[in-house]
Amino acid sequence: MADERDELIRAGRLFDRRGWVEGTGGNLSARAAAGGFWITASGSHKGELTREDFVRVDIDGTLLETGAPGRRPSAEVAIHQTVYRLFPQTGAVYHVHSTEANVVSLFSNGPMLRLAPLEVLKGFRVMEDNPRVEIPLLPNWSNVAQIAADMHARLANSPPPRIPAALIRLHGITVWGPDALTARHYVELLEYILRFMVQARSAGVEEDW
Amino acid sequence: MADERDELIRAGRLFDRRGWVEGTGGNLSARAAAGGFWITASGSHKGELTREDFVRVDIDGTLLETGAPGRRPSAEVAIHQTVYRLFPQTGAVYHVHSTEANVVSLFSNGPMLRLAPLEVLKGFRVMEDNPRVEIPLLPNWSNVAQIAADMHARLANSPPPRIPAALIRLHGITVWGPDALTARHYVELLEYILRFMVQARSAGVEEDW
Amino acid sequence: MADERDELIRAGRLFDRRGWVEGTGGNLSARAAAGGFWITASGSHKGELTREDFVRVDIDGTLLETGAPGRRPSAEVAIHQTVYRLFPQTGAVYHVHSTEANVVSLFSNGPMLRLAPLEVLKGFRVMEDNPRVEIPLLPNWSNVAQIAADMHARLANSPPPRIPAALIRLHGITVWGPDALTARHYVELLEYILRFMVQARSAGVEEDW
Amino acid sequence: MADERDELIRAGRLFDRRGWVEGTGGNLSARAAAGGFWITASGSHKGELTREDFVRVDIDGTLLETGAPGRRPSAEVAIHQTVYRLFPQTGAVYHVHSTEANVVSLFSNGPMLRLAPLEVLKGFRVMEDNPRVEIPLLPNWSNVAQIAADMHARLANSPPPRIPAALIRLHGITVWGPDALTARHYVELLEYILRFMVQARSAGVEEDW
Repeated sequence: MADERDELIRAGRLFDRRGWVEGTGGNLSARAAAGGFWITASGSHKGELTREDFVRVDIDGTLLETGAPGRRPSAEVAIHQTVYRLFPQTGAVYHVHSTEANVVSLFSNGPMLRLAPLEVLKGFRVMEDNPRVEIPLLPNWSNVAQIAADMHARLANSPPPRIPAALIRLHGITVWGPDALTARHYVELLEYILRFMVQARSAGVEEDW
Repeated sequence: MADERDELIRAGRLFDRRGWVEGTGGNLSARAAAGGFWITASGSHKGELTREDFVRVDIDGTLLETGAPGRRPSAEVAIHQTVYRLFPQTGAVYHVHSTEANVVSLFSNGPMLRLAPLEVLKGFRVMEDNPRVEIPLLPNWSNVAQIAADMHARLANSPPPRIPAALIRLHGITVWGPDALTARHYVELLEYILRFMVQARSAGVEEDW
Repeated sequence: MADERDELIRAGRLFDRRGWVEGTGGNLSARAAAGGFWITASGSHKGELTREDFVRVDIDGTLLETGAPGRRPSAEVAIHQTVYRLFPQTGAVYHVHSTEANVVSLFSNGPMLRLAPLEVLKGFRVMEDNPRVEIPLLPNWSNVAQIAADMHARLANSPPPRIPAALIRLHGITVWGPDALTARHYVELLEYILRFMVQARSAGVEEDW
Repeated sequence: MADERDELIRAGRLFDRRGWVEGTGGNLSARAAAGGFWITASGSHKGELTREDFVRVDIDGTLLETGAPGRRPSAEVAIHQTVYRLFPQTGAVYHVHSTEANVVSLFSNGPMLRLAPLEVLKGFRVMEDNPRVEIPLLPNWSNVAQIAADMHARLANSPPPRIPAALIRLHGITVWGPDALTARHYVELLEYILRFMVQARSAGVEEDW
């Protein structure tokens, strides 16, 4: 029988091939029909997930079900809770670590990062010529609760972002979408833009966008 | 039974592994023996195509057949129509988005981009020493019809290009060939040249070609 | 029946996909329940290992068992012995060659290399903000015994390193962990950090960390 | 029954995954027990070879056998003949096109390219500290016979090279070895060194080696 975890397992495998979830990095979640959301357990390798490597938690973080005894939710569950709480239409939240996202996180000292105006922004329903789109750029803290609090403070008081994503400095991106498949496509597209930005700067052809 | 879509499915899988069709990016088409051409449906992931993810359209864009109910042609079908119309020997048209193509699209402000004189140009039947070959470099527009019109205007009034390809700025390449397999080889070769051009510039060894 | 070699075979395959064990490069070992440790045989390709491609040696290097007749231990077995001797909790030692590790080995002329303060350091239990973590940077010698002696001299007289790894200049990293799976994750994480450091410097955004 | 072509088929698949034989680029050969050598047929994609995609030719280029009717030897067969003739111990010759080899071919204007003194040179039996090793750097010509003649002139009058390889400018490397497996390892190692050289220069840490 199909299970919300299956698309997360698949996404993890694809992200692993790209090198975006090295070690036991990254965390993936999706809303569960049974209530709350499934999230990867702490310490699991995202390229080799099974259904046992997930726990189901309520939006306030209460543990509802574990795929296998002893599994605990990802240490970064608070970030997922923040996103589900702020954007109730969210069906899945992915947090991955690419080197490119980390490099790009040093391109701006401010609170926002402008994305290069690539055509692929259409994948986020950005339909104008030479679009001006930014994503929040948050500081990193070893205390995950502080990251989640920053993210809440930043996103709760702004209009809903055009790109459903935030970048945490020297850490990685958090991306969300209406369902697990769309969220995966969003990760691919955002990582594509960030990869382009690194290459353009390395080649010295970056423009003033 | 073999079907023109099968080679497109295969090409999509190969392009996906390279990161050239992120999200639901890119679009692939091939002439159909039954008339018109098969083109990927809007919103499909090119690494995971099935025959259902295609529609068959006439050269004027009229929908002839859908792989599955409700599928609509790629939003960029007009670009494919333009190519089939201008170059009647064309059997397949591929449009893909690599980061390198986007970086290279910033190397020239003019209407053409000179390709580095690599030996692999022989794959396009360019057989001279230190060849001087250019491809059209077109502006990008959110309105696809405008891209198609630009491409028509540029290509209709020139001798047939030596390299069957055009580059759309910050968007990607469109490549065509006599059949789907050859067109796939052409994509590989052109992306190879563009990748080289990015690396050569990043390493500071680009010459004045 | 499970065997300590199986996780090494798997690790070799994964490292090969990344290009970290080109030719017959790299060497992998894990403690054996039967005594001593299994190490890859000299001349084996790490992406295509079978159980025959290992030999079991005592911690002093005495050959205990060969997977197939005539196999000899990796020429770099002395480095593995050094690690097992210095850190008795070590369950596995991996030595791989990435181009990025070699590039980064030129970032410092001193005896240590500071790692960029990326969030993934948490995978090594480094839990503070903006962590300051270094790994030993050793000279390379064609005489492997000299590398092993240098490593012993450097590590024997220091507190246990926070990151269980050393970098040998223009050669590669040696990484160890309590078990083969954890050691593999450590390799992925350290290579991730080194890859980031190369990209950040190439893009000109490296900070003073 | 085993066949010399099988290891070439496998090598082609591995090279294709790395992007070293784009389009129908590259050509692979190995001595045949039946006489002469098997070489990839013109126009074949090296990632998808079958035994039919080879022809067997004598060392003077005479066609001895075709895997399938109508197949002709690679247009670059003359380069393979040159190597087999000059170095009778050669069991296999591989010619591949990486972007990195092309970038590096611009690092020197002279007739030789010094390789970075990486530890992996041990894979070529280069066993000293800080080794000084060069490979011939040949000009490219659209006329393959001219490349082969240049290679012959350069190699016939020198001591046998320490690295069994030559680099053709803006074209690619030719590598040979005593057997097909060893030659594949040599390709991996040389491409590794060239990749490092491009990364080191792009990061600005290249030394005066």
